[in-house]
Amino acid sequence: VFTTGLENVSFNGAVQKTDLQGTVNESEYIILPLPITRDKKTLNAPLSDRSTFINNEFAKLLIGKKIFCGLKEDIISLGVNFSELNLKDYSKEEEFAIKNAVPTSEGAIELAMQEYDGTINGSNCLVAGFGRIGKILAHMLRGLGANVFVAARKPEDLNFIEILGYTPVNIYTLKDKKGFDIIFNTIPKMVFDAYTLAKIAIDSIVIDLASLPGGVDFEAASRLHIKSIQALSLPGKVAPKAAGEIIKSTVLSMIAKEES
Amino acid sequence: VFTTGLENVSFNGAVQKTDLQGTVNESEYIILPLPITRDKKTLNAPLSDRSTFINNEFAKLLIGKKIFCGLKEDIISLGVNFSELNLKDYSKEEEFAIKNAVPTSEGAIELAMQEYDGTINGSNCLVAGFGRIGKILAHMLRGLGANVFVAARKPEDLNFIEILGYTPVNIYTLKDKKGFDIIFNTIPKMVFDAYTLAKIAIDSIVIDLASLPGGVDFEAASRLHIKSIQALSLPGKVAPKAAGEIIKSTVLSMIAKEES
Amino acid sequence: VFTTGLENVSFNGAVQKTDLQGTVNESEYIILPLPITRDKKTLNAPLSDRSTFINNEFAKLLIGKKIFCGLKEDIISLGVNFSELNLKDYSKEEEFAIKNAVPTSEGAIELAMQEYDGTINGSNCLVAGFGRIGKILAHMLRGLGANVFVAARKPEDLNFIEILGYTPVNIYTLKDKKGFDIIFNTIPKMVFDAYTLAKIAIDSIVIDLASLPGGVDFEAASRLHIKSIQALSLPGKVAPKAAGEIIKSTVLSMIAKEES
Amino acid sequence: VFTTGLENVSFNGAVQKTDLQGTVNESEYIILPLPITRDKKTLNAPLSDRSTFINNEFAKLLIGKKIFCGLKEDIISLGVNFSELNLKDYSKEEEFAIKNAVPTSEGAIELAMQEYDGTINGSNCLVAGFGRIGKILAHMLRGLGANVFVAARKPEDLNFIEILGYTPVNIYTLKDKKGFDIIFNTIPKMVFDAYTLAKIAIDSIVIDLASLPGGVDFEAASRLHIKSIQALSLPGKVAPKAAGEIIKSTVLSMIAKEES
Repeated sequence: VFTTGLENVSFNGAVQKTDLQGTVNESEYIILPLPITRDKKTLNAPLSDRSTFINNEFAKLLIGKKIFCGLKEDIISLGVNFSELNLKDYSKEEEFAIKNAVPTSEGAIELAMQEYDGTINGSNCLVAGFGRIGKILAHMLRGLGANVFVAARKPEDLNFIEILGYTPVNIYTLKDKKGFDIIFNTIPKMVFDAYTLAKIAIDSIVIDLASLPGGVDFEAASRLHIKSIQALSLPGKVAPKAAGEIIKSTVLSMIAKEES
Repeated sequence: VFTTGLENVSFNGAVQKTDLQGTVNESEYIILPLPITRDKKTLNAPLSDRSTFINNEFAKLLIGKKIFCGLKEDIISLGVNFSELNLKDYSKEEEFAIKNAVPTSEGAIELAMQEYDGTINGSNCLVAGFGRIGKILAHMLRGLGANVFVAARKPEDLNFIEILGYTPVNIYTLKDKKGFDIIFNTIPKMVFDAYTLAKIAIDSIVIDLASLPGGVDFEAASRLHIKSIQALSLPGKVAPKAAGEIIKSTVLSMIAKEES
Repeated sequence: VFTTGLENVSFNGAVQKTDLQGTVNESEYIILPLPITRDKKTLNAPLSDRSTFINNEFAKLLIGKKIFCGLKEDIISLGVNFSELNLKDYSKEEEFAIKNAVPTSEGAIELAMQEYDGTINGSNCLVAGFGRIGKILAHMLRGLGANVFVAARKPEDLNFIEILGYTPVNIYTLKDKKGFDIIFNTIPKMVFDAYTLAKIAIDSIVIDLASLPGGVDFEAASRLHIKSIQALSLPGKVAPKAAGEIIKSTVLSMIAKEES
Repeated sequence: VFTTGLENVSFNGAVQKTDLQGTVNESEYIILPLPITRDKKTLNAPLSDRSTFINNEFAKLLIGKKIFCGLKEDIISLGVNFSELNLKDYSKEEEFAIKNAVPTSEGAIELAMQEYDGTINGSNCLVAGFGRIGKILAHMLRGLGANVFVAARKPEDLNFIEILGYTPVNIYTLKDKKGFDIIFNTIPKMVFDAYTLAKIAIDSIVIDLASLPGGVDFEAASRLHIKSIQALSLPGKVAPKAAGEIIKSTVLSMIAKEES
């Protein structure tokens, strides 16, 4: 393993620090940081004192290598040479999405604990959406002793929700429900518009976990004095080690699949 | 309901703000703040601009009333007149202790989430002690998907721990175990002394929930570069509304018992 | 509600018993028994003393009615007039399948309790397959305190299995595992062939829940002295009331969908 | 290990079959069958063709040995020489009682599954008593997806019941509750007398797990046409291997304690 841009870190084991050129020359596979840049100019390398410019020179250096990255489309948009790279996007893999649902759910619970002045145990929690995050978040909230309501659209999901011991809420009649202490949204559509917020969330805390553009009208929430949080990229924030290990295991699975 | 020292709060319903004299005159039962004072001179009243001195005058005013308080012994030590008061200590009630185990456990989990850079799900958590807090904390950790180890002394507890699906650890052989990501202590005895910490906790985060003097040698932990936290009075810090409601329901139970 | 063939039952409420002709004439919707016949000659009506022949006359009577049934293809194969009927098969509905997974899973657990001379709590249980039944069965077994292993094929399922706290088993390496007290199969393919049974199931009880032709080589199991059970149509056997209610709610959903 | 009265069993490992005299001579510790006799005349030995008489001769043979047994008082009542024996009763040990709560709870669930024509999942189950069996049974029923109500007397138990996610029922107001599909009693007092049964159990199945004299008026239940079951000695019936292992581990713990 060769690294660059990590001068301020000390490693155990077979990790060598070299410069960018050396790292690229010696390596078959290259893993780029996520996001690749924070300023659209230099490589995102918070543990380095030096700046590496993200330009066509940089891209040329990488041509011919197998490169793992997240959010491929952001990298391609950086310049013409970048579109020639052999980019493999781990953030599009099913494994990445499922595993990230765990730190996302825990991060959401940590936020809820910080913001709510009661206990999760005994509170009424609504989870909107029953995809990967919805399933895991509902499971964890119940594990803490919350009364868990899950809002979904599909009849088969509503049946399954009930069997698992949650209270199913038909998303089409969501506006008629009340009494939620905490609302977690996982649906990337405008579910919690001004009208819905006014009807059901006046005394709630609202946490939006859906990827942008999200599913909560935050402006309306603010106008209605509803405490609401747009929680993006939780894994890296609340569980950086776990987030790194998820990238590692996804990349290893991708390499294994390629070689088999 | 009459209140004093809450000038900066607005109430709904039948709550009247008066001065101390008025409040005492009108009330049959009086609830003191917890702790009663933070400076040993004036009444603990963070939502008031005025100071009320905690002196013999103050005590005299209260003689003959039924007074609910926490930590009775601290109040009695304030002066001679205080020992004549009819003090009923809610913090000694079983109900208070059990209900507080919930915000204490959630607060411990919130701390663990903040300090640990992985996820609780899939982590190895040791809970030392299987009293009220140990039981509820282990239940919640498992609900989040942790591998839960519970250390106890009594054979019947160890049997019960296993039946509930946790891994039992005999506290006498604790020194031979390893690999805990997070250690929660609930035993108010020196269980995690320097030797035990060095043997089992070098790579762990240690959170001590036991009441003072606690069960962790924090000086040794610091010397060993073990991240360790003495977590006291969690309910009021992490879930103030819940903490207040627990006092309310305990006091109501005490009044009901008295009247029956 | 009109009924025929239930002479030996007493009803509360607005249920009228008439003859077949009367029932058909008065009803807009007709629900046939499941299975429609046990002898390929007469209507399946265990609570009646009379026989109703399942012939073209019978079919003619039903033409023009909306008829709810299970296993439509069995009915159509009864004769030429049956294919002209307006048959709506509730057993093909997602709701029916999901809800039946509950009595199926409980029936499987009841069988396991009867056959296994230890306790489910603390036993090692393998669930092969992570579809509807696999998910609910694994959930219930863990709820009883079993060590639950779930075998699946898809990487995303294996990830999800681990997050939910079960031990994932790659179905391709199933042959290398051992030590299962009870094996539940839910996969309708020959997963447990003679070789696999000999390798992993010599000391196990094997319960096959997959629809015919099933996934266990019962002949081999018998030769190897492995206790094995083909458990078909569990809902009607172990929880007849629940089974009936599932048909009712599925039919009502079908009518509601049709009318909307 | 020496055995007698097991001629019809084949053993693996270091087990020798001898006659009674030989077994007693060679052994330091002796384990008697439970119960010791079924006819008050001969030793309970269902796997032997011969009869061993339980008389003073028999007792004399055992004098001076350390003898493990269950239900000591039944043995002492057999004759004068029996009271001179060094009897150690494993059935009085805490470990025995706790571990037996597992097969007892599972046996109760198996009975409920057999008798109830719905599913446990989604049913309303009342558990009366929150001792060892009550705690484990409630835990398992919830694990299957039942709505679990737990009736107890002590306020601290009622608080704990609520925290664990069950619905607490004050046993003094039990008569005012309704709608239970299955009632499990674990309290060895007459809790379910004729009046209580008539008020709350008309449509319920009642399973009494309390040791004799039990807590259900079965005569009244029969008069009221309530399906009720007195479930005694479940471990040996539903999980004989588990029951045997519990005796083994309890005896080993007793020997270990003695030697330490």
